[in-house]
Amino acid sequence: MEEKIKEALAEIQRGTAEIIDIERIEKLLRNYFENGENFYVKVGFDPTAPDLHLGHTVLIQKMATFQKFGAIVQFLIGDFTATIGDPTGKSETRKILSEEQVLKNAETYKEQVFKILDPEKTEVKFNSKWLKELGTGGLISLASNLTVARMLERDDFSKRYSSNTPIAVSEFIYPLLQGYDSVAMGTDIELGGTDQKFNLLMGRTLQKAYNCKKQQAVLMMPILEGLDGVQKMSKSLGNYIGVTDQPNDMFGKTLSISDDLMWRYYELLSSKSLKDIENLKNGVKNGTLHPKVVKEELAIEIVDRYHGAGVGIKAKTEFEKVFAKKDIPTDMPEFEMENGIWICQALVDAKLVNSTSQARRDVKANAVSINQEKVKNEKLNLEAGEYILQKGKKSFAKIIIK
Amino acid sequence: MEEKIKEALAEIQRGTAEIIDIERIEKLLRNYFENGENFYVKVGFDPTAPDLHLGHTVLIQKMATFQKFGAIVQFLIGDFTATIGDPTGKSETRKILSEEQVLKNAETYKEQVFKILDPEKTEVKFNSKWLKELGTGGLISLASNLTVARMLERDDFSKRYSSNTPIAVSEFIYPLLQGYDSVAMGTDIELGGTDQKFNLLMGRTLQKAYNCKKQQAVLMMPILEGLDGVQKMSKSLGNYIGVTDQPNDMFGKTLSISDDLMWRYYELLSSKSLKDIENLKNGVKNGTLHPKVVKEELAIEIVDRYHGAGVGIKAKTEFEKVFAKKDIPTDMPEFEMENGIWICQALVDAKLVNSTSQARRDVKANAVSINQEKVKNEKLNLEAGEYILQKGKKSFAKIIIK
Repeated sequence: MEEKIKEALAEIQRGTAEIIDIERIEKLLRNYFENGENFYVKVGFDPTAPDLHLGHTVLIQKMATFQKFGAIVQFLIGDFTATIGDPTGKSETRKILSEEQVLKNAETYKEQVFKILDPEKTEVKFNSKWLKELGTGGLISLASNLTVARMLERDDFSKRYSSNTPIAVSEFIYPLLQGYDSVAMGTDIELGGTDQKFNLLMGRTLQKAYNCKKQQAVLMMPILEGLDGVQKMSKSLGNYIGVTDQPNDMFGKTLSISDDLMWRYYELLSSKSLKDIENLKNGVKNGTLHPKVVKEELAIEIVDRYHGAGVGIKAKTEFEKVFAKKDIPTDMPEFEMENGIWICQALVDAKLVNSTSQARRDVKANAVSINQEKVKNEKLNLEAGEYILQKGKKSFAKIIIK
Repeated sequence: MEEKIKEALAEIQRGTAEIIDIERIEKLLRNYFENGENFYVKVGFDPTAPDLHLGHTVLIQKMATFQKFGAIVQFLIGDFTATIGDPTGKSETRKILSEEQVLKNAETYKEQVFKILDPEKTEVKFNSKWLKELGTGGLISLASNLTVARMLERDDFSKRYSSNTPIAVSEFIYPLLQGYDSVAMGTDIELGGTDQKFNLLMGRTLQKAYNCKKQQAVLMMPILEGLDGVQKMSKSLGNYIGVTDQPNDMFGKTLSISDDLMWRYYELLSSKSLKDIENLKNGVKNGTLHPKVVKEELAIEIVDRYHGAGVGIKAKTEFEKVFAKKDIPTDMPEFEMENGIWICQALVDAKLVNSTSQARRDVKANAVSINQEKVKNEKLNLEAGEYILQKGKKSFAKIIIK
């Protein structure tokens, strides 16, 4: 029994950035193992953007881990604020959704997350149910539970306040609503990214204020870096692998990441055990394994998860064929460069030309490509990311800009 | 016509501390005189404390003035927050009221204000009507119209924030509700005390945000000092004349105020014209009028207003009889003293004894009274207020402590 709990805890702790009240989590696990009692793990999702990428799946896989140990997942769709919109007008991308759209987006979510989660142990919830009921008076009571000073401690509020960037009073209400969701659902553990810490703790604060029996534990996962290895994986930055991406794209994108990032993806996205991952690392270190092979293995695992067993290996074959046809070697020298580097300097540093003046002539002569696209502007500066730089038909280099 | 408007404006401006958008007020008056169109003047009252004192009547008399020139008074009872209570628990005196209590208190209000206001030109309103309807979403939208920085500019918030005194997020909502009342009622002019300036301006801000045709003008009255001439008239400080006070109390309390304060009460409470008041002042100045006579005239006017014509003069006779019986002279020397003065020093300064040691012996001998009550403690310090100090049976002095 003790051994089982210890193993479960280790798996739950894997890759986490921070856990608040691990004692509560241990008690919940013990109660499950001893008495078979379930507990509730909540994660909130934005109904306006139901297309998941691997950044989201870090959380979803942690939810799946919890499901193995007695958790009922509260898959919370924050439809309430989506149906009233963001009245601040602060973010133009925040759309107002109709109820039909919310339901449609919820279906899209389900299709995607049930590739990872067990539908039998998942409750899909909509917070408009209890937030509408709250009403004017209920909302004022809710807002009486936190002070303005405490709100202004939240990192982004504090920065905006001190830089005189307007914060609407309504923005102070959103974290309260998120916390109240935990009150309404009787959540035992809430998961989220490290950037959500303030809002996640709000659940604890409010559960106490509303005299709930227990306060939720909080488990925070790190923010997954995108393909560039620098910024948070996000749709708007274009540095993402989408859950609904085609197998070949998924495979190719995974292969494009740096070796360092690969280990991070292994830790946060692979279902391989930590021991297996350690063995792979040792293999690369002592030269018995080529990093590209290890990366392919990760890519195959990811493709298989979202497209079914066997699809990953097919994607690999396909990918190699395409590269072969395009005369792009699957292995090439790598160079790290500074953010903002001038294309002509990059060509010199990547040893593809001998001088920037030669590089300039090559660009003008249409002989230089980045990721298979001709470079038209010899003044181009390159931003963070990974690129395949090509001069003429035969010279290639991979450059990593941080 | 122009003359009429000018006179009305002068009467409206009388005694005001500040007017915002007087042009709007002038237009409303013009429209009334030219086209007979009415306009709406709002004043908000707290339903938990329906016992009015003269501090409140400063506003009510201004409302009555407006009624002479076309105003329909929106007598707003802020029942919404009273029925949910003050969830911050900040003020212990703020009670939660049932709907029945609110209606009962409203009746009490009516009994009192209709001694001044014209019931035909008064609409009694309850803000729970539209504030309940607002709901969670509506309240969030409302709160999106103001920034945290702007809220923290409000004097009391700013002081509390900088002194680390907690401000609940809900407290940011109350001024918004008050402003929204003006949106819901289509208010043209809102009246209030100078201490309400921030909240009064909120009506303008929100009427603009909600695309109302016009923004309300704001007229602020000064805060009436209580009988002590120092602090705001208030029930809790005990320095008030209540609208329902008995005629004799009303008369006596008015007579107890200082000569300076008397002129302030004339300006803010009397219905005498400014010219008549100027004449009284000149009479006192050149010695043809005794200030006590002028004070009695004010006292009579106040008693008559709340108890009917003729009651004031009766109160005067009664008052004089009581004083005669108690051997208290109706006129006595006055002295101003510093706050916190020691009783024995006060007796010396009022020339009732020659030394503090003599004063001490007199107090111990039970020979000293303040307002007809024996002083038991020779260490007593006197706080701000006006007192009748008495030594033995025949020596009196009035002391004014600021």
